[in-house]
Parts: sequence; C-alpha cells; structure tokens
Amino acid sequence: MRGFVQLKADTSSAEVSDWPEPLKDKILLEEIFPNETDVDADINWMAEPLTDAATRESNKNSMRVRMEMMIMKIQRDFCRALENEEDPRYKFLVDRWTRAEGGGGITCVLQDGTTFEKAGVNISVVHGKIPPQAVAQMNARGKKLPEGKEMPFFACGVSSVVHPRNPNIPTIHFNFRYFEVVESEEENRKRWWFGGGTDLTPYYLDKSDVKHFHQTFKNACDKHNDKFYSKFKAWCDDYFLIKHRGITRGVGGIFFDDLDTPDRESCFDFVKDCAEAVIPSYLPIVKKNREGPYGYSERQWQLIRRGHYAEFNLVYDRGTKFGLYTPGARYESILMSLPLHAKWEYMNKVIEGSREAKLTEVLKNPREWID
Amino acid sequence: MRGFVQLKADTSSAEVSDWPEPLKDKILLEEIFPNETDVDADINWMAEPLTDAATRESNKNSMRVRMEMMIMKIQRDFCRALENEEDPRYKFLVDRWTRAEGGGGITCVLQDGTTFEKAGVNISVVHGKIPPQAVAQMNARGKKLPEGKEMPFFACGVSSVVHPRNPNIPTIHFNFRYFEVVESEEENRKRWWFGGGTDLTPYYLDKSDVKHFHQTFKNACDKHNDKFYSKFKAWCDDYFLIKHRGITRGVGGIFFDDLDTPDRESCFDFVKDCAEAVIPSYLPIVKKNREGPYGYSERQWQLIRRGHYAEFNLVYDRGTKFGLYTPGARYESILMSLPLHAKWEYMNKVIEGSREAKLTEVLKNPREWID
Repeated sequence: MRGFVQLKADTSSAEVSDWPEPLKDKILLEEIFPNETDVDADINWMAEPLTDAATRESNKNSMRVRMEMMIMKIQRDFCRALENEEDPRYKFLVDRWTRAEGGGGITCVLQDGTTFEKAGVNISVVHGKIPPQAVAQMNARGKKLPEGKEMPFFACGVSSVVHPRNPNIPTIHFNFRYFEVVESEEENRKRWWFGGGTDLTPYYLDKSDVKHFHQTFKNACDKHNDKFYSKFKAWCDDYFLIKHRGITRGVGGIFFDDLDTPDRESCFDFVKDCAEAVIPSYLPIVKKNREGPYGYSERQWQLIRRGHYAEFNLVYDRGTKFGLYTPGARYESILMSLPLHAKWEYMNKVIEGSREAKLTEVLKNPREWID
Repeated sequence: MRGFVQLKADTSSAEVSDWPEPLKDKILLEEIFPNETDVDADINWMAEPLTDAATRESNKNSMRVRMEMMIMKIQRDFCRALENEEDPRYKFLVDRWTRAEGGGGITCVLQDGTTFEKAGVNISVVHGKIPPQAVAQMNARGKKLPEGKEMPFFACGVSSVVHPRNPNIPTIHFNFRYFEVVESEEENRKRWWFGGGTDLTPYYLDKSDVKHFHQTFKNACDKHNDKFYSKFKAWCDDYFLIKHRGITRGVGGIFFDDLDTPDRESCFDFVKDCAEAVIPSYLPIVKKNREGPYGYSERQWQLIRRGHYAEFNLVYDRGTKFGLYTPGARYESILMSLPLHAKWEYMNKVIEGSREAKLTEVLKNPREWID
C-alpha cells in the first residue's frame, strides 16, 4: 500500500493571503507535493478505501461515500505533508484493518522520527448496530434518540495527533466525523450530523503562531457562518479542559458537535473547509520552529505537559473513553494519540516569570487570539 | 516534620517462618529499624496526625481514631523501610495538607532515587458531607444507601504505589481504608465498612517472588477466615483488569471492599494484619532483585508496562476516578500513583518465547500461585 504517486493538493481553502506575518509565504501546498501528477485520485490514498470500488461507484453521490473520499484525501495529504518535514528514512506505517461487525479503518503512524516523535493519522468507516451506551451518551448531550432499541448506524471520520520532537513545535490534534443513525427502519427515519475540531498544544507560547492557527480556522468558519468561529472557539476551550488541574489541554482552536443545520450540503462544505485548513494552519508553525534551540529542561517540561495530554485523553476525552469501552475496539488505533514519552513528577512547579509560567497562565485563563 | 526516631516495628504478623525459599531469612523487620528506641509512638509519624491530640485522647477507643493511628504507623513503617533500601541522599518528602470541608492527609513521596524511581505513601483522614456521585457509585455496587440526601461521612485510609528503578523489581500497590456513613442522624443509624488490597506488577516473571507475595497475604487471610484468600485473590484479578487490552495490571494479590462481617473488631484486625504483611511481602523481593542486571531493552519494556499502569489508573481505577471528579481534591496526592516515566509505542510487540512474552502470558491468563 506504499509508494502512491503524490497528487497536487487542492489549495482553494489554503487562504495563504490571509496568514498573519511572519508566517505568510513560508509555505505553499505545492511545496509539499513537488512531484504532483494529475493521475486518477483513487490510487493516491494511504491504503485501499474501506468501501469497495463497486459500492463507491454506485453510491458516489451519497454523503457516506463523499465523506469517506474526503477523509481519505485529508489523511493522504496530511501524512505526505508531515513526511515532507521528516528525515526520509522515517515514513508512515500503514495498517488497514476491518472489524467483524462492519467496516474498519486505516491507521497511519510515524514513530520516533527526527521531526516527529509520534504522529498518528487515522480514518475509520464503521457501520453496524449502535451500542446502547453510545445512545445514552448521545442523549446525555441532548440528541433524543429512542433508547433500548437496536438502531443501525454509520460513522466515518479522520482523527490525528502529532507530537513533534522539538518542544518549540506545538502538538496538534484534529478530528472530523460524520454520523448517521436509522431511528426507524420501517419509516425510513434517519438522523445525521457532523462533528469535529482541532486544537493546538504548545509547550512554549509563541503568540504569532497561536494567532496564525486560530486565524486560519476563523477564515474557514467565516466562509460559512460569521457566528461559527466565536461559538466553536469557546466550545473548544470548554471541551479540552483538564478539570482536576484547572487548565486547558492547550491554546484551543475550534470544536463542534451535532452540526445538522442549515442542510447537509452546507455542513459537509464547512467540515471539508476546516479539514483542508489543517495543513496551512500547522505546517508553517512546524517549518518556523523546527530548528529552534532547546535543552534538557525544555524536554522535561515537554514530557510533563505530555503527561497532562495523556491525562486528558484517558480521563476526559469522549472519543477515547467511548472507544476503550467498546468491546472489540482496536485500542492501538485509539491510543495512537498518546505521546511516545510522558512524565509525572510529584509537585512539579513552574518558576514565576519563566516561559513555562507564561504558558501555564494562558492554560489557566483561555484568551481571545483574534482582535 | 522530619527526623523522627525510628521505632521497633511490630513483627507479630510478619510470619517470617512461613516465607517460601529462597526468601526466608532474607529480611527481618529489626534490620529495617536498627536504631529502635522505645519512646512514645506519637512522635514517630511522618507528620502530625490530622486529628488533634485532645480529640485522639478523648476518643482513643473509637474505630476512627484507632484506624487513623494504625495507618499513620503503616505509613511511617513503610516509608522508613523503603528509605532503608535507598541511597541516604534520597528521603521521602512529606506534605501534610488539610481541606476546607474537613480533615486532610499526609502525602509522602520519594522521587528519582537510586532504588526507587517514584514511591508514594499517602494517608488521608477526611469527613464532611458525602458527595451524591459517591453515593450513586456505592449503590451501584449494592450498598443501598438513601439517595438524594446529604449524609455525614468519615473516611480514612493509607494508599501506596512504589515504582522501583530496576526492572527486575516489581511495582507494588496497596490501599487499606475505613468508611463510615451516617444514614440517619435522628435515629443515629450509622453504616461502616473496610476495604483494601494489594497487588504486584512485575516487569519480568519470577515465580518464587510472586509465590512469596501471595503466600504472605494468604497467611494474613488464613488467620481470619479460610475463604478470604481465594475470594479476595479472584476479586483482585477481576478488579485490576485493563479491559481494552485484555490483560491484568500485574500478577494480582488480594482485593476486598464493603467488608462488614462478622463484626467491626474482627474486620479491623484483619485489615491491620494485611497492612502489616506489606513489608514482609515486598521488601525481600526488593533486596533480592535490586542488583539484578538490566539494559536498554528491559528499561523500554518497563516504560511500556508503566504506560499500561497509567492507563489502568486513569481509565478504570475507582479511587483515582472518584478523586479526580471530586471538586477541590488534591490531585497531586491522587496522581502520585503514576510512574515518573511512561511510554506508549504504537504496536509494541513482544517476541515469542521472550521473557516479555512469558509475563504477558500470565497477564492474559491469571494463575493460581499457591498450591
């Protein structure tokens, strides 16, 4: 499944002209894909899609297939963009897996590289009967699905976490997903929604990087609804909160769930624009900071913060918890989000006025990044 | 609060004569406390008890005070026993804390030592109104307490996790606790129970060590009820299960909860005997393996297994979850159980027939250790 020809990336949502200084002009998507050839996109994925070619062809206008194709492309583009920043000896390992109950996934992991200590980019396309605890969880956030009933469902999404080696480069996470539940097969009553988001976890605060990250997603949001960015930015700060420590996981970004208005087409376009904004939001930050100097104490702080990251994912993250509690789930794919190394030191204290303290201040009091 | 005179430990439950070969005669508690002086026990704790001297004196026969005194002694004895195995430059840090709602705790941590990478020994003595989610959790395991009512409670316990440096030495955990809830103040209706347990997490399997550990607690159990060991051993295997991986956290030990028969005095005696069995169960294993050779690959396996340990504690452990979800809880004390370093490697595989595989086999299929 390796060795696919690299395709030209769609730059329509890259919005290079909107990037703030000093990041403007630092990256163009074309740079990432210098050997672009305009061949059939189908052969450029990380692995064979989960849905077979005949089904894809006969349902090519369905949202299920369009979303699957979209996340396949996002996975490929992001993996290639990261490999482009990496020592060529290190490549993404690709694991394509299927599950007995229906569907499967493609897990791509690059581990112990020079630029990236651990990077995972997963897609999953699953269907079957929805587990009762999933219905309870959805209803707990107001979905009002009938309980105690075996409902067919379909879910697909792309999910990624990148933990770079250099503490001057932040960790990024993103996830975009589409969900369908058949509430009543007799009445053909179907519910669907989109969810997703992305957030940045720096080890040291570089305001221009954080502004660039937020601005890129604000631009994607603003194309669709001028209330989206402020609503989804606040939701993100709220969601990625490590409650017991009273700090956020990072400096936020956007987060949304249960998106089903105004119509499916508009929602899809919005999610696609957000997913395509990931590379331009993050790659300039990688390029800018990859040679930044650091030493033992910066590495220790990075490890402590990676412990906080693991805590959030294992204690609070809905996706991780739901995954781990689902019998037969592929835990290796779920746990790819955990850092390669983490450290828990009793009573680790940051020194007043230090760069660590400056970051902690922002984690305690989330700020607005766009004027 | 440092520099207390070391007291002679009570060896009545040490049962040295029952230890299996080759551990017999390797340790005597007297060795740990060579400078014993028979002074007032009150000044030999790690810090001042949470309950003040006047209250202790006027309630000295109450179970609350007796249990508090018992766990204070266990904490002191275990900390001193560990320090006795450590480079004298490394000592337990002692943090005594109180909480606004009532009570507090004493957290003792020795970090980044020569023998011990991280060791925590905590006691807590708390009282106040029981949080509703705690009542729900207790009732979920069959306690039948009235819900939706603010009930006064008292809880005290000792809890410890020791992560040694050398992968030839297993990690140990133990916890012993006493709980009281006033169901009805008007009718003076009080419920009480004890809980606790201890389990061993080796990185490499040494059957004689595991047998010694289990035998020590079987001896403590058998003094009280000949069904306790087999029941609490099975409960331990069941409780310390990392469900998503299909492996236990370690090679087990004993675990029990809601112990309230035949009477409070007998329960206390049992819990005290178990708590006093910890040093003789573990110290010989430390002494035997502390000089065992190891290299890079053993350290990597230890880090991977420490990742599993962190997963269990953050995802499944009732005490940790309850603690982290309690507003105002002292998270530094709760998270002392996490290892100093942990590693998560995507698709880490053990080589067939290796020592890592032999341990994994036992984690997948818990065994009986006593003939």
